[in-house]
Amino acid sequence: MKVSRRSHVPPFAVMEILAAANARRAAGQSVLNLCAGEPATGASGVVRDLAAQLLAEGDLGYTEALGSPALRRAIAAHYERWYGADVDPARVAVTTGSSGGFMLAFLAAFDVGDRVALARPGYPAYKNILAALGCEVVELDCGPETRYQPTVAQLEALDRPVAGLVVASPANPTGTMIRAEELDALAHWCADHDVRLVSDEIYHGITYGSEIGPVTAAKYLDLGAIVINSFSKYWAMTGWRLGWMLLPDDLVVPVDALAGNVALCPPALAQHAGVAAFSAEGYAAAEENVRRYAACRELLLARLPELGWTQVAPADGAFYLYADVSASGLDSITWCARLLDEAGVALTPGTDFDGVDGAAWVRLSFASSVEVVGEAVDRIVAWQRTLST
Amino acid sequence: MKVSRRSHVPPFAVMEILAAANARRAAGQSVLNLCAGEPATGASGVVRDLAAQLLAEGDLGYTEALGSPALRRAIAAHYERWYGADVDPARVAVTTGSSGGFMLAFLAAFDVGDRVALARPGYPAYKNILAALGCEVVELDCGPETRYQPTVAQLEALDRPVAGLVVASPANPTGTMIRAEELDALAHWCADHDVRLVSDEIYHGITYGSEIGPVTAAKYLDLGAIVINSFSKYWAMTGWRLGWMLLPDDLVVPVDALAGNVALCPPALAQHAGVAAFSAEGYAAAEENVRRYAACRELLLARLPELGWTQVAPADGAFYLYADVSASGLDSITWCARLLDEAGVALTPGTDFDGVDGAAWVRLSFASSVEVVGEAVDRIVAWQRTLST
Repeated sequence: MKVSRRSHVPPFAVMEILAAANARRAAGQSVLNLCAGEPATGASGVVRDLAAQLLAEGDLGYTEALGSPALRRAIAAHYERWYGADVDPARVAVTTGSSGGFMLAFLAAFDVGDRVALARPGYPAYKNILAALGCEVVELDCGPETRYQPTVAQLEALDRPVAGLVVASPANPTGTMIRAEELDALAHWCADHDVRLVSDEIYHGITYGSEIGPVTAAKYLDLGAIVINSFSKYWAMTGWRLGWMLLPDDLVVPVDALAGNVALCPPALAQHAGVAAFSAEGYAAAEENVRRYAACRELLLARLPELGWTQVAPADGAFYLYADVSASGLDSITWCARLLDEAGVALTPGTDFDGVDGAAWVRLSFASSVEVVGEAVDRIVAWQRTLST
Repeated sequence: MKVSRRSHVPPFAVMEILAAANARRAAGQSVLNLCAGEPATGASGVVRDLAAQLLAEGDLGYTEALGSPALRRAIAAHYERWYGADVDPARVAVTTGSSGGFMLAFLAAFDVGDRVALARPGYPAYKNILAALGCEVVELDCGPETRYQPTVAQLEALDRPVAGLVVASPANPTGTMIRAEELDALAHWCADHDVRLVSDEIYHGITYGSEIGPVTAAKYLDLGAIVINSFSKYWAMTGWRLGWMLLPDDLVVPVDALAGNVALCPPALAQHAGVAAFSAEGYAAAEENVRRYAACRELLLARLPELGWTQVAPADGAFYLYADVSASGLDSITWCARLLDEAGVALTPGTDFDGVDGAAWVRLSFASSVEVVGEAVDRIVAWQRTLST
């Protein structure tokens, strides 16, 4: 029987790595997992305590499609606290993770056949969701000269117009951030050209005091921009499947209608308990995680000379180091497979993020502990020595 | 800025009713809510106890895209227990509610431009999701002569081929079930004509011993059929956002790939705790709810003569009574608005389920208590008397 053309999603190379890692672990061998884009810790105690209380009370029915009013207010207040931005709770849509947010944003903003631009390298689900929804993905080749971020110049150079632009800062897999003045230029260019800007800000809060600060597109809602965010990374609530969008006025009603049909509502317990993420204890627990990532990052940067990688994206934020390992003479899929097999360290091949240049790159996630990251570096350094002999 | 054409989802009339009901309640007036398609109770104690234990343990990270292996096994075992059917856990995909299941099923089976048939009246999200995904919806006009269910004869009579057929049994809004021999005929006709059968079975377990028993399309997986189910109705876990699919072999890999991109995974806590729904206590709690629905249904059927509705769909299952109120001389939107305003009872206008004949019909949900349903009937009977004077 027919299987849809749009379901032919390219497989992720990391799935092979994960399967091999699991087999290794099942065989009793050590594996250091640095391929997951997931905090090693879970939700904070204050969120889990509130969830336990709500579970005992038992009222976990459907919420409004756009989310519980209390959580929408708490999210709006977060923008005042972090960015000094005045966001109307009516413009906040709670979503089933940022995945649910991307689905709704793309459905509301783009029709079948619309062209949407995004950076390469980048998070592969953007283009896979867009393709599944019948949109045409326009990849912008982004390199070190622009911190792997798209620019107005690239949009100006397109031969045919696009209906949308997806940006991510800090980005996955590179961890790089976009400069405030460049985001400003992009937002205005998009508004001037009737292009919907979608800003993925799920790694906000996980930054390391580089010369570039995280900027939110929340200030461009009136220009038509959409902001996507999540409780998964900063608040380490991956499995809770909770995220949010900030919407321009023209998309509030469409997203409400779409959400009621495609999702009904985000998970109720996560929503009700998620309010506690914005408490003093919730932020404090998140900051403790960020300090751990920062220590892992310091260790990695200090040991870069030993690793000998010729090119590394500036790790402004998130918990990734994106590195060019092509000097090894191996493509990144082989490099990762052999590293796991021969040294027990799992990294992600760059091919999952970049179909053109990804064979030169690998992504290392340092969302675990300083001990694990340090031991992984030891193993990688020793293993790389075996390659050159 | 452009808003997508596909986001122009028709609004639900029930939203107006709900808003008016909330305003009424806020003003201190009594409202009996019989419009929600949601059990009045929540998850069973055994599920909530397991969830509380898992929360304390804290490991709520991403699961596999197709769901936790333990839950997939428990779901497969449920088919042996209820239907004597041998289902391979590898064919079970856990989803974010049945909503997540429909999204994945439609993406995997249908391309932009594909035509998909379904019954009218029916659950509106089917056609709204299909339209959002670029599919063409083909409504089959289903009436009392076929228990409001589609037939092979209707499919044979289509002037152009379809790529899919969605059936629901028990159905929403009618509560009617499909006969085993008719489902068998539909499944074979679909297989013979390369048409993907999608069987919505989310109300299985909520049936009332009519001459028609619930039949699962699980036995037609090898013919290419997809089964959709949910923890929301029988297990009363609406806000948990947990459901599942049974997949034919050719769709396992496509759904896995799509799920990883569009959803990452279903909510982890719901998945891990959902295993307890299949325990003896979990089934017992669900059956207690079903006995309450059965008592509500008995009361309604006994008082039908008083209500004087000219035509009522046979309420084989689910917790709905779908009734023709056109003898009142009012269209159903006006009928529902006035019933709420003048008697404080909220029902759903049939227009939400049937864009052609729905103005004659209303849907009454009896998922609350015998007391509420009895009081609602008293009020409706009294209010209807005021209409004829």
